[in-house]
Amino acid sequence: MIEALLAQYRQTRALSLSCCEPLALEDYGLQAEAFTSPPKWHLAHTTWFFETFLLKPFSPGYVSPEPAYEVLFNSYYNGVGEQFPRPQRGLLSRPTVEEVGDYRRQVDTAMEGLLADDTHPERDEILERVKLGIEHERQHQELFFTDLKYSLAVNPLLPAYIRGEMGVAGIAGAPCWLGYEGGLSGIGYRGEGFCFDNELPRHRSWLEPFELSGRLVTNGEYAQFIEDGGYRRPELWLADGWATVQASGWTAPQYWLERDGVALEYTLYGAVARRDDLPVCHVSGYEADAFARWAGARLPTEQEWELAASKAAPPSDGVGTGHYHPGVAGQCGELQQLYDACWQWTRSAYSPYPGYTASAGAIGEYNGKFMSNQWVLRGGSCVSTAGHLRPSYRNFFYPQDRWQFSGIRLARDPQ
Amino acid sequence: MIEALLAQYRQTRALSLSCCEPLALEDYGLQAEAFTSPPKWHLAHTTWFFETFLLKPFSPGYVSPEPAYEVLFNSYYNGVGEQFPRPQRGLLSRPTVEEVGDYRRQVDTAMEGLLADDTHPERDEILERVKLGIEHERQHQELFFTDLKYSLAVNPLLPAYIRGEMGVAGIAGAPCWLGYEGGLSGIGYRGEGFCFDNELPRHRSWLEPFELSGRLVTNGEYAQFIEDGGYRRPELWLADGWATVQASGWTAPQYWLERDGVALEYTLYGAVARRDDLPVCHVSGYEADAFARWAGARLPTEQEWELAASKAAPPSDGVGTGHYHPGVAGQCGELQQLYDACWQWTRSAYSPYPGYTASAGAIGEYNGKFMSNQWVLRGGSCVSTAGHLRPSYRNFFYPQDRWQFSGIRLARDPQ
Amino acid sequence: MIEALLAQYRQTRALSLSCCEPLALEDYGLQAEAFTSPPKWHLAHTTWFFETFLLKPFSPGYVSPEPAYEVLFNSYYNGVGEQFPRPQRGLLSRPTVEEVGDYRRQVDTAMEGLLADDTHPERDEILERVKLGIEHERQHQELFFTDLKYSLAVNPLLPAYIRGEMGVAGIAGAPCWLGYEGGLSGIGYRGEGFCFDNELPRHRSWLEPFELSGRLVTNGEYAQFIEDGGYRRPELWLADGWATVQASGWTAPQYWLERDGVALEYTLYGAVARRDDLPVCHVSGYEADAFARWAGARLPTEQEWELAASKAAPPSDGVGTGHYHPGVAGQCGELQQLYDACWQWTRSAYSPYPGYTASAGAIGEYNGKFMSNQWVLRGGSCVSTAGHLRPSYRNFFYPQDRWQFSGIRLARDPQ
Amino acid sequence: MIEALLAQYRQTRALSLSCCEPLALEDYGLQAEAFTSPPKWHLAHTTWFFETFLLKPFSPGYVSPEPAYEVLFNSYYNGVGEQFPRPQRGLLSRPTVEEVGDYRRQVDTAMEGLLADDTHPERDEILERVKLGIEHERQHQELFFTDLKYSLAVNPLLPAYIRGEMGVAGIAGAPCWLGYEGGLSGIGYRGEGFCFDNELPRHRSWLEPFELSGRLVTNGEYAQFIEDGGYRRPELWLADGWATVQASGWTAPQYWLERDGVALEYTLYGAVARRDDLPVCHVSGYEADAFARWAGARLPTEQEWELAASKAAPPSDGVGTGHYHPGVAGQCGELQQLYDACWQWTRSAYSPYPGYTASAGAIGEYNGKFMSNQWVLRGGSCVSTAGHLRPSYRNFFYPQDRWQFSGIRLARDPQ
Repeated sequence: MIEALLAQYRQTRALSLSCCEPLALEDYGLQAEAFTSPPKWHLAHTTWFFETFLLKPFSPGYVSPEPAYEVLFNSYYNGVGEQFPRPQRGLLSRPTVEEVGDYRRQVDTAMEGLLADDTHPERDEILERVKLGIEHERQHQELFFTDLKYSLAVNPLLPAYIRGEMGVAGIAGAPCWLGYEGGLSGIGYRGEGFCFDNELPRHRSWLEPFELSGRLVTNGEYAQFIEDGGYRRPELWLADGWATVQASGWTAPQYWLERDGVALEYTLYGAVARRDDLPVCHVSGYEADAFARWAGARLPTEQEWELAASKAAPPSDGVGTGHYHPGVAGQCGELQQLYDACWQWTRSAYSPYPGYTASAGAIGEYNGKFMSNQWVLRGGSCVSTAGHLRPSYRNFFYPQDRWQFSGIRLARDPQ
Repeated sequence: MIEALLAQYRQTRALSLSCCEPLALEDYGLQAEAFTSPPKWHLAHTTWFFETFLLKPFSPGYVSPEPAYEVLFNSYYNGVGEQFPRPQRGLLSRPTVEEVGDYRRQVDTAMEGLLADDTHPERDEILERVKLGIEHERQHQELFFTDLKYSLAVNPLLPAYIRGEMGVAGIAGAPCWLGYEGGLSGIGYRGEGFCFDNELPRHRSWLEPFELSGRLVTNGEYAQFIEDGGYRRPELWLADGWATVQASGWTAPQYWLERDGVALEYTLYGAVARRDDLPVCHVSGYEADAFARWAGARLPTEQEWELAASKAAPPSDGVGTGHYHPGVAGQCGELQQLYDACWQWTRSAYSPYPGYTASAGAIGEYNGKFMSNQWVLRGGSCVSTAGHLRPSYRNFFYPQDRWQFSGIRLARDPQ
Repeated sequence: MIEALLAQYRQTRALSLSCCEPLALEDYGLQAEAFTSPPKWHLAHTTWFFETFLLKPFSPGYVSPEPAYEVLFNSYYNGVGEQFPRPQRGLLSRPTVEEVGDYRRQVDTAMEGLLADDTHPERDEILERVKLGIEHERQHQELFFTDLKYSLAVNPLLPAYIRGEMGVAGIAGAPCWLGYEGGLSGIGYRGEGFCFDNELPRHRSWLEPFELSGRLVTNGEYAQFIEDGGYRRPELWLADGWATVQASGWTAPQYWLERDGVALEYTLYGAVARRDDLPVCHVSGYEADAFARWAGARLPTEQEWELAASKAAPPSDGVGTGHYHPGVAGQCGELQQLYDACWQWTRSAYSPYPGYTASAGAIGEYNGKFMSNQWVLRGGSCVSTAGHLRPSYRNFFYPQDRWQFSGIRLARDPQ
Repeated sequence: MIEALLAQYRQTRALSLSCCEPLALEDYGLQAEAFTSPPKWHLAHTTWFFETFLLKPFSPGYVSPEPAYEVLFNSYYNGVGEQFPRPQRGLLSRPTVEEVGDYRRQVDTAMEGLLADDTHPERDEILERVKLGIEHERQHQELFFTDLKYSLAVNPLLPAYIRGEMGVAGIAGAPCWLGYEGGLSGIGYRGEGFCFDNELPRHRSWLEPFELSGRLVTNGEYAQFIEDGGYRRPELWLADGWATVQASGWTAPQYWLERDGVALEYTLYGAVARRDDLPVCHVSGYEADAFARWAGARLPTEQEWELAASKAAPPSDGVGTGHYHPGVAGQCGELQQLYDACWQWTRSAYSPYPGYTASAGAIGEYNGKFMSNQWVLRGGSCVSTAGHLRPSYRNFFYPQDRWQFSGIRLARDPQ
């Protein structure tokens, strides 16, 4: 098992670097908004995580290459100490990319040493934390893509992350509804593998019967919402959503644009013609909710989503490798696009499960302290990392956030 | 029944005016923040509600004394039309208090006419809306007190709303825990009387066993939290709560103050010595949550609260009459201070019940569009209006809000 | 002389009250923006000035009716102590209007006593300060009108300060240019009467030959500037002015409005049809500067203005009494509208004269500390108080300010 | 002469590149605040200037390597067209540094061609604009240093721009006062060489007698001001300055810091021990003004400074080469540190000279439109470029700006 874990560690660490290969050195520092982080910072922070929660407490001889990194690359762990101000991460031209590479190598060497020590008195805790560190880095691999996309899009040159084809065209099947009976349902992770603390404890929840759409809402369907005045009709919106529309001037999803009368979408492949059959992507929770109301439907609760997903095929290994934009749905009949297209907004506020308790110490800040004002998203996206997803996984963002690959799966009460 | 309704109408309308009697004319325009409204505006807006949703649609001959009132006194009903900007309500020196009094009288006369017409083809809808209008005005009577308190407190002279004694001193009993079994529980309003649409539909919810504190947290207990560094320890707070503490500089509840080394609390009776035995009041949801964590407990969910309240004594008629500050709890043994002291923060986000649908038209904006980012409070307060409360009543505010009479009832999992 | 001073004192104090007569009690607290003050505050602050700088230091037995007034009604005198926050002056519903009236009467009584004491060892200083206090109150009388106008205009009902006719129509003469030779000129106050410290010391300044327009720019001329794209052409504007136009969305002077296609102007008489022959009013320094550039002219320097005004007729006694809007200019031939229409923006930054020294103590904060970032305006306006003006008078506001009666007199180099 | 101009062109262009040599590639994109620009942007914008004002109008065959550069690298020329938002210049990871290098080379080649064409019908205009372009790039070379210093200082690692010694220690002489008679003085540029339009026309100005300090205020003297409560005493400050101190929390010059009780100053050589004998640097105009008031002196007017400088030695060729921090003053006796230490705040608002007219077209936006709200600084600094300075040179910044090498030379009226 330690072999498997070590392989996973190496693979994950290597993937963070290979994701960066298409970048120009100048791209590593980009941070267009406070909520995004530069590529270099992701590389450093994921390393800091292993250094802080494993090497410093468990490897007595370990010396950090630079004591200031403790502050520079701390994201939000008050239990560790002060943090360099988030909105200024893009201003850290030093350490350079090369120096961050050195930092990664040094930590990796020390980590291999720690993992080789099978007599360590804290061996169990160490292995648990390594698993967490790997999952943590996988989360940042997804953020690497969404943050980078956001920052590149600010540049009027609309640079592509990668050259290539977005994938074969298709025809999204007609929407279809799949029915579920509900009842007293088990919610939360059950099993032997890794899960985050926010997926626990498994507990019972009563659900009324419901239906879910077999696939995600498409660009073409969303365009109809816009044409029907979707962004100008307050009656379709939550009050806070409408206030956001007014303040932000939103009239379309994040990356829709028009040049010389042609409908385009900015993607990690650059600006491409917008395709009606692809899932609408980069919409906020407010937009998802308003679209659903316009469509005579609603967003699912996270319990409904989990119940349905637990009866469907699990995420395949291929998820999230080599495709940087969601693809077209297949024909109706079963739940599609659960994990490989866009995260799916639910209308559930991100809250603790009954009986939830956070871990002790700084590592307990991982999830629990964010349980207010955010909404749960379920599933996964085209830029999620392989092996990272499961039916009980709870992603969470503020309802106004749009820079994730976030889309819409409709729900409704039985007709 | 129409007699009872008419009596209720008259009583409610009269109460709005009698609440204002202690005011100086200069107080009627006070609006210290955008989220508060001036006394005069409450008087006008509650009148506008009857004019807009009853007289204009159902009394063909009705003519408004001033067409501009439609915009001036519309709070947030986009379905009715534009609204005068909320932060500027205090700048409407005209219409004068006297002119608003004329407006009230004119609408009341027309309303009496409408209610007398028992052959009106829309009679049922009219009666439903009158009930809603009465409950609406009762809500504003509570807001009148909380808004006024907030605005008066800005003045260094700390003016009292009313002269008088706050009530007899007592000794808050030691806290005690009351246990509940949970299980599949019915949640939501059940009965024949009035309720808001957000209390419907009644539905099932699975609850694990839980315990509630018999009384509210006291000033004395909260002072211990402060002394123990409560406002300086991030580990006690939700992340958004901690950010709020940093940004706002909170170090105590809204109206605590110190003068010459004496601990005071600003109340509607002016600044008085702070009493350890009274419930802590005017805390935000974030503070309530942090206190609970510090105390080794948690906030209840709204379902837990409702289940417990449904087994306790209903709100008495005397609620909310003539006391402008919460009183001391009695001895332990049953649930106390449910309705007559402070609203109680739950950790439930304000969301639609399964199967919820809002009413059609502008009147449907009453509740549904606010179902994001707010937290549910349950119970009632010393300034709630008589007859206004019930176990299924859902109040809701943002977790950073402190100007309501909001306090803390603790919950915990069975030990 | 003391008789004359006493008469002036009484007259000035009475005028502040009589200006308020047309108000509703609800108007006394209006403060639409931080830079305006409520009528009641002006009444109290001008009283505070006499109390603070005369009664407290020179009348040993004097006791203030309320110690808190020292903070509440201090405008900006750090030397006196703390100040109640300026943006919240409108929130002081207490003291009531009646209580402020009591305050005025009590201070007036004490002031009469102090002035009667011709054996006071500080008699000279007292008389100097009384003169300053009178001039100070006259300045606030003008601010009373400009602040009130601004605050009333926020109300969609557009209330009039006073009912009545704005004055006889006329035809503004064609613009004409008056030439001045310049040379080594004496600038600053010369004489025996009162002047502010910023008008001193009189000194020499070299001026090149210049020309001034005989009258102010009219609404009709300004409308041509707008039609010619004045607010859309950055090349006409100072960079900071253009940034202000972009940020504020200005497209016309402060009080121009259009209803149902009719061009109106909000005045203290309410909204009236806009007249082409009246001076354009309530423009910022940036707008004045841009208009001048568009017109192929420029704004005068304050020295040019003073030189020209010193050769023209002095302000008449009638200035500022009973007219609340600027009138039409007469025929060309001499300098008109110097003191009785609109203050005239100069392009001179407000700076100390060579050799300037502020008075010692808090009273020295009156003028000197404002000598940065503001522009000098010269002349006077229709709401200036009688006896308050002279050629050397320096008024000053930020170039973005528009709520004064500020207009445009053009200058140019000899052709 | 064309040879000399060509040499100057090449030298200037080369210097921009050699200034960048100590940088890491990651530093080229740094922009810590909107008022600073990244090194790469300076390299591109100075190139854009030649392309826009010379190649596009005068070299018919010229084709830009990328049309989007017209917008990306336009600073503030509305006459040219839109500008990429200033605060986001640091987000332009593309074009890369290498691509900007290509851009520079391509423009240089085209410029050499244009300069070689001595039969061009617009030859005179071309040569004038080339001179302006060279001076423009020299200004940006100074901004390169001040912007970079500001951006590097945000990094807690406090990176040095260059390794090396700041220069030999010395002892600042005691301050001494030099007297000037004033009188009718000629102000503005007189001569055959290059000057900016804001130095024209030369004109007369009357000056009263005055005295200037022979050297700049030192760190040691400024430290006394701080110890004496300088930042806590409102009576020393202009009102806007005091408001800035309150809002910003200033307690010392921009780059003063303390670590472990040691007084340091961040410089382009990194953080070094603060030396009492060096000039105080990176103070705002407000701080300069407050210090002067505290010292019983005042800031000079720009006319006083120019009159004095016109009688002193002109700037030496060596100015601004190889020293990145101001040095110590020599012994008293004549005006020192005029051009090679810190720019010197005057109390003169930046205004047009009598008779000033801006050039026609977009190039006229260079100076004139900034003539409001800024203060004039005179002299030059240790990072000014060789050959760039003269007695009539007018630099200008907002009084709150501190990121330039700005210091204090005191003036006073004759004693």
